[in-house]
Amino acid sequence: MRCTREIEVRDLEEIAINLDPIQAGGRLTPEAMKAIIAYGDGYSVCDNCRKPFRLDQIKKPPIDSFHRDLAKFVNMDEARVMPGARRGFQAVAGTYAGKGDPVLLTALSHYTEFLAIEAAGGVPKEIPKDGANRITADAAAAKIEEVTRGHGSPPPLLFIDHFDYQFGNEHQVREIAKVAHSYDVKVMYNGAYTVGILPVDGKALGVDFVVGSGHKSMASPAPSGILATTKEYAPELLRTTRVKGDVTGRSFGVKEVELMGCTLMGATIMGMMASFPAVKERVNRWQEELTNGKVVIDSLASIGGTSILSEMPRRHTLTRVDTRGSFDRVAETHKKRGYFFTSALADHGIGGVIPGATRVWKFNTYGLTRAQCEYVAAAFRDIARENGIPVS
Amino acid sequence: MRCTREIEVRDLEEIAINLDPIQAGGRLTPEAMKAIIAYGDGYSVCDNCRKPFRLDQIKKPPIDSFHRDLAKFVNMDEARVMPGARRGFQAVAGTYAGKGDPVLLTALSHYTEFLAIEAAGGVPKEIPKDGANRITADAAAAKIEEVTRGHGSPPPLLFIDHFDYQFGNEHQVREIAKVAHSYDVKVMYNGAYTVGILPVDGKALGVDFVVGSGHKSMASPAPSGILATTKEYAPELLRTTRVKGDVTGRSFGVKEVELMGCTLMGATIMGMMASFPAVKERVNRWQEELTNGKVVIDSLASIGGTSILSEMPRRHTLTRVDTRGSFDRVAETHKKRGYFFTSALADHGIGGVIPGATRVWKFNTYGLTRAQCEYVAAAFRDIARENGIPVS
Repeated sequence: MRCTREIEVRDLEEIAINLDPIQAGGRLTPEAMKAIIAYGDGYSVCDNCRKPFRLDQIKKPPIDSFHRDLAKFVNMDEARVMPGARRGFQAVAGTYAGKGDPVLLTALSHYTEFLAIEAAGGVPKEIPKDGANRITADAAAAKIEEVTRGHGSPPPLLFIDHFDYQFGNEHQVREIAKVAHSYDVKVMYNGAYTVGILPVDGKALGVDFVVGSGHKSMASPAPSGILATTKEYAPELLRTTRVKGDVTGRSFGVKEVELMGCTLMGATIMGMMASFPAVKERVNRWQEELTNGKVVIDSLASIGGTSILSEMPRRHTLTRVDTRGSFDRVAETHKKRGYFFTSALADHGIGGVIPGATRVWKFNTYGLTRAQCEYVAAAFRDIARENGIPVS
Repeated sequence: MRCTREIEVRDLEEIAINLDPIQAGGRLTPEAMKAIIAYGDGYSVCDNCRKPFRLDQIKKPPIDSFHRDLAKFVNMDEARVMPGARRGFQAVAGTYAGKGDPVLLTALSHYTEFLAIEAAGGVPKEIPKDGANRITADAAAAKIEEVTRGHGSPPPLLFIDHFDYQFGNEHQVREIAKVAHSYDVKVMYNGAYTVGILPVDGKALGVDFVVGSGHKSMASPAPSGILATTKEYAPELLRTTRVKGDVTGRSFGVKEVELMGCTLMGATIMGMMASFPAVKERVNRWQEELTNGKVVIDSLASIGGTSILSEMPRRHTLTRVDTRGSFDRVAETHKKRGYFFTSALADHGIGGVIPGATRVWKFNTYGLTRAQCEYVAAAFRDIARENGIPVS
């Protein structure tokens, strides 16, 4: 089936159980699907835009109350929607990182955090990970001291991922925020893998900025995301324009500089809004997600020569696994080489693993039912057995 | 009908002829509607993302060839998709406007251009409009000289809107680009009201950067847009990341700094791509759009006390009209006050005029059929006659 002559319809979610590491939390709800159809047209949410002409003030559809709900959802004072988490990072870095300023992030930070700092003219400095691939408050403190000695003053900002994209390991956000604040370093919480899939309480974590991703974890179309902050920092981060036309004397009222004014004027925000009731509810089922995921983890761990590289027990459904001693051994002599594995998974109706990957790879069980997890677990074991790998 | 308990289905385009000034070029094509359904899920276009892991290199769906087609479409060398035209302005300003640098724009520039310059730390300087609300090359030259005297060196950049958002007037892009280049000033072409609705040839215009809006003029969901440039400036504007992890030594390959890496990873780009064949074709029907729009213009001009504030004859379907001497006179004594006008339009099945507006307002006939334009023209005259306004 085709959308146009050149565009095939995507059917991965219909024909397979999808283990893709980044797609799990971004599948639309049925409500979001209805909303993007109803609000597909470009500036569709602007029908009832009235003074002061800003997206987060539109009452119909109720975008204004959605913004208040979003702030509550992550327990912060103010929230805005953004075209992706990365644009949230950019807004924070753009506000606080001056040219040449060091900005802390971690040895497990996502590339978009580096880019946000680079675009602002800052210099990214990594907090090392420990032997278990975790970022600790001690390491953060040591890095702040090291950077402060080199730079002469503390870094303005520290970016910390609650769970990183590489291992899905949990990092000491609350402790790191506390340490950072003791050095007067502001803290941005990267919730790309948390906001929308597990409960996030920005105030309890003690962070200054919360960034989340709509298309990664809030069942929303791309690009979408949120940026939230406290009463203290809202006037800086969400500052309104101060420039004036030197000829016309025009000024631009309440438009927020780092947002470039309005951000998501149609299908993207309506997808976020329509999914939001389900998203608010699903974060409370996180333990169930972990329990289901464990079925798959246990299966992989039972396959000889396979090791789970992520921290154990798993506290996230995104997991990094090393099959160099199992499936990769098979790939060495298989006529399909590495592709035997994704091909065997496809035969079982399982997708989302990078074709040819048999060494170190990632998967995500988020959103799968218990029955689907059991099916996937059995499939991994079957594929191992069929290829002569011992299963305990 | 509802998407969720709180979200009503939008039906403006189904129940009315929509004259909204900003929505006309962003209505989805049927193909785009199919594509956003098939690719609604968050990171839906990433199924087949392979090394070097960048949106514009994905072959399935054919996002890579779409990027080449986009560059050709505006006759530039390189093109990227962006989350809105404003993010294109931001990328250009972020690359070229240093702190305190003056950046030229015009007395008719859109607020997002001011914000892009402000965010980059630049100082916006307006080229005055002439008595006919047009920006001329002479005015640009005079402003460049004035700014150069004040700043000690020429401004790095000049932003020019081909057609402005206030009057829909055409400005002397080619002549301004020539003048700007003679002072070594780079030129950004704001095609928010042109790219996707009329033919745009960046090389013929002699501009260095072309920015367009998907949701405003390319029949695409928001936020979407394009940023295009020449071989000469691509290495600067589309520069790839140069930072390194100081602990891990990580670097991030081909990720483009001003884009924050990938930009539109799902419904938005697929909507753009699916509409593109129709968009490429429709720009060739621009004269027909103007001819149809003229029917409405002639109707308004025939209503006593009404004047068209935009340049005449119209060279764009976006028009600013002054009805202070006609419909606003009626509003003075009508029991519905200014709302009588939008209410009467609604009775005729016409929407998109700001409720209560009877003084100076804008409308856009883009995309309406000849029959629809004739219907709208008759409705304006009918409403005038019914309210005792003379019609010639």
